[in-house]
Amino acid sequence: MAETQKDSSLFVKKVSRRNMLKTAGAGGIGVLVGASGLGGILSITKASETEQVDNTVPFYGKHQAGITTEVQNHLYFASLNVTTENKQDLVQLFKDWTAAAEKMTKGEPLAESASNAYIPPKDTGEATGLSASNLTITFGVGPTLFVKDGKDRFGLQAKQPAELQGLPKFPLDALEDAWSGGDICIQACADDLQVAFHAVRNLVRIARGKAVIHWAQTGFQRSKQADAKKETPRNLFGFKDGTINPDVKKDSDMNQQVWVQQGDGPDWLAGGSYMVVRRIQMYIEVWDRTTLSEQEKTFGRHRDSGAPLGMKQELDTADYKAKDSNGQPIIPKDSHMALSHGDGTQSILRRAYSYESGMDPQTGSFDAGLLFICFQRRPSKQFIPIQNRLAQSDKLNEYIIHRGSALFACLPGTKQGSYIGETLLS
Amino acid sequence: MAETQKDSSLFVKKVSRRNMLKTAGAGGIGVLVGASGLGGILSITKASETEQVDNTVPFYGKHQAGITTEVQNHLYFASLNVTTENKQDLVQLFKDWTAAAEKMTKGEPLAESASNAYIPPKDTGEATGLSASNLTITFGVGPTLFVKDGKDRFGLQAKQPAELQGLPKFPLDALEDAWSGGDICIQACADDLQVAFHAVRNLVRIARGKAVIHWAQTGFQRSKQADAKKETPRNLFGFKDGTINPDVKKDSDMNQQVWVQQGDGPDWLAGGSYMVVRRIQMYIEVWDRTTLSEQEKTFGRHRDSGAPLGMKQELDTADYKAKDSNGQPIIPKDSHMALSHGDGTQSILRRAYSYESGMDPQTGSFDAGLLFICFQRRPSKQFIPIQNRLAQSDKLNEYIIHRGSALFACLPGTKQGSYIGETLLS
Repeated sequence: MAETQKDSSLFVKKVSRRNMLKTAGAGGIGVLVGASGLGGILSITKASETEQVDNTVPFYGKHQAGITTEVQNHLYFASLNVTTENKQDLVQLFKDWTAAAEKMTKGEPLAESASNAYIPPKDTGEATGLSASNLTITFGVGPTLFVKDGKDRFGLQAKQPAELQGLPKFPLDALEDAWSGGDICIQACADDLQVAFHAVRNLVRIARGKAVIHWAQTGFQRSKQADAKKETPRNLFGFKDGTINPDVKKDSDMNQQVWVQQGDGPDWLAGGSYMVVRRIQMYIEVWDRTTLSEQEKTFGRHRDSGAPLGMKQELDTADYKAKDSNGQPIIPKDSHMALSHGDGTQSILRRAYSYESGMDPQTGSFDAGLLFICFQRRPSKQFIPIQNRLAQSDKLNEYIIHRGSALFACLPGTKQGSYIGETLLS
Repeated sequence: MAETQKDSSLFVKKVSRRNMLKTAGAGGIGVLVGASGLGGILSITKASETEQVDNTVPFYGKHQAGITTEVQNHLYFASLNVTTENKQDLVQLFKDWTAAAEKMTKGEPLAESASNAYIPPKDTGEATGLSASNLTITFGVGPTLFVKDGKDRFGLQAKQPAELQGLPKFPLDALEDAWSGGDICIQACADDLQVAFHAVRNLVRIARGKAVIHWAQTGFQRSKQADAKKETPRNLFGFKDGTINPDVKKDSDMNQQVWVQQGDGPDWLAGGSYMVVRRIQMYIEVWDRTTLSEQEKTFGRHRDSGAPLGMKQELDTADYKAKDSNGQPIIPKDSHMALSHGDGTQSILRRAYSYESGMDPQTGSFDAGLLFICFQRRPSKQFIPIQNRLAQSDKLNEYIIHRGSALFACLPGTKQGSYIGETLLS
């Protein structure tokens, strides 16, 4: 590779774009690029564009996508209530959803259009011409799908996991029914909001007569395209959020902390995960009148660098025992970080999005904040104890309020020929 | 260029990425790329990434940006009511907004952070590390800034343009105060929603004690990044929207149709434009149960191609006189396209975004649709006659409802040392 290549077109064809960049980094390379070779370089540029256009995340797999998948730019989250009383309808719904989700996550329409002008189109069309945009669709079931008002709705009561109960009421909760609960959830994430919207809208359309929307909320992150530096995203209080998250690339950590294991509870959920959703309104105007010092003590981190207080770099280990010259802990005990950390034994996989819903008519302020989403193997040992600590004494509670809450069991993944929910419903 | 270049590093430095691609397209080129030359090629890739990161639209200019600017992915629109009764406060507000908007559209924070930990940060921080993302910020003033409840609030009554009155009530309007009117509007558009949110949030923060949000709505388009084909975007009914728009690159057309001219009315608005905003809810579920044929007759276009009915290509000229074998017009007279077109003498510059706001609690359906925005030189001769026709007989009215409405005079552009609104307020 350190010599001039005569057959440049072969050279270009042999190395991938990634390899070429890596190789070139070594320096001292001379390459004779002939006519087709320059075409090869052009195709490098085009491949890079194609990579953006053809971004797909496989729908089938041992686990559902959208849990350990790298966070996309946009979220469309919908909570649905089931209206049918017929279990066979429910089975058909999940079969239809599986087929539709497979197509949409590939960036394909649900049906070729215009086959018959005298029926409603099978695909609603607004994503036509758009790429898959890394769309993931993740389905979960809530406690009320099993038992509602004391009724075993679909003969599933015996299958309800002990972990899948309504979350306890935490201190300071100000939950509204309009933002809480639901029999089924659909989490659609994509780098293009129009693609995520299209997915949920078509899944809801397919559910006609069987389920209806209970509540829905979009969420956003800073755009990956705009943020070439791949920094940790900042929440609407301007702080880096999600610095300490388990490593989704370590299967052992995921099996320990995120994926329900055989023997944990009903085996139909093995390979699935529990998803907590909290709609947390942030009092932006109040926060914006707070001093930087107070803001940093509230989170326990420096705002600009994201470093734990007293440290320099975002990923520096927090020293919860360090004291300042007055003998006070540098990271306050009631800071969000210290309380979230606790004794370090509980961990959750956070996958939150910021949300905004215009003006809050009750306060005249922004209705904006965090659609907090986390995944875990056992809520009783992970989210619930963490949130109990936070709800009792988190300094951040002066600036936030929990308006919505839901818990779902995200179904295990499925494979071609099977359907999402089969282990529960068959 | 058709010969092998010996000094490849010179070659690479001389041609820009665009030129290189163009040249290479001619084919038959051989280039010897030496060590530094390959570095040159690498820097091409890097430049392409940098281009994405450094996307800025100048804030200063003869006209405000965000009107003839290419549509960005996201919109954050806010309507504000002025709470101060002091004109000098209003002047200061626009001065402060001008300085802030200039910085933010450059992708700069409003102030270097952490200069003083014992005051609130001057920038709220959530856009730190993000690029300008083509942010544009466009300010307008509503009729109620001049006269409200019969009161000449700031001594501006004599300056109120005849064209800047509340829009007439159109048939079928179902307007809600919560989505209508406002003394001032801020339209922030960016390819990253977090950047647009940051802009409005900080401008509202700066306005504290002088103005408050009356209503706010985000909007989205299909992502430009995901849509390499640059097709006309589709609305939430799956149809291409905005095909026939005046050409923003033709100054003569813009002066004729969009920019207020000297002598049109009060000269303080020359170089500005009138902005109509309509929050149009779309009955998605009803639409989705309608046949393709009915959908196409409603718009007057084929869904897949976007072509006028009876034509093949999106940009084919519509033939409003063509008849089918039954002697009926191929493009129905009550179709949205035919009525919008009218006799072809009225034109508006549309710059609409889709919106979604979760579930509509009144109907249990999606609260989603179009935040219709258009710009024009004279509403009385452009939007108003068009909307009068549409409101009376548009076939689309079965599927949509106008919930919000506002009219603003978008101020002329300004230059360094001056401020937005100076021609009105000084």
